[in-house]
Amino acid sequence: MKYAAKIEVSLRPGHRNPEGETTTRSLVELGYKVTAVEVSKVYTVFFEAATPMEANAKAEEMSKRLLANPTKDNYTISIVEQK
Amino acid sequence: MKYAAKIEVSLRPGHRNPEGETTTRSLVELGYKVTAVEVSKVYTVFFEAATPMEANAKAEEMSKRLLANPTKDNYTISIVEQK
Repeated sequence: MKYAAKIEVSLRPGHRNPEGETTTRSLVELGYKVTAVEVSKVYTVFFEAATPMEANAKAEEMSKRLLANPTKDNYTISIVEQK
Repeated sequence: MKYAAKIEVSLRPGHRNPEGETTTRSLVELGYKVTAVEVSKVYTVFFEAATPMEANAKAEEMSKRLLANPTKDNYTISIVEQK
């Protein structure tokens, strides 16, 4: 079966977020009353797996092995079966 | 009132996606049956606005002026009022 895993990777609280800080500054310079910006990344991975449970386990593995840095990132996974 | 706008910026179909291609290759090398990876970015912007309608209009402006490239990006906005 074909699955899509939507994996959102974000910085854990307490880690510096230079891109968010720069974006905040730019938006303030443009005149918006912005107090903070958080930046995260979403990977939508299209892949094969036998069952939804296996798809979820594989997406978890991919996150740990490649997509997220376990020291500084949090991640969330949602799985959709493709028709 | 305080609002958070979650603005997801993704590449329009047909535009090259080098980060997704590299990620696909890496996941295949790690042994996963991955056929494609799409990458998008989520900006969560915390800011002041008078009403939800104004918050939405401002988030739309921020997307057009700074966060998304109108030539190659799509974006979606969702607004949450902060308590």
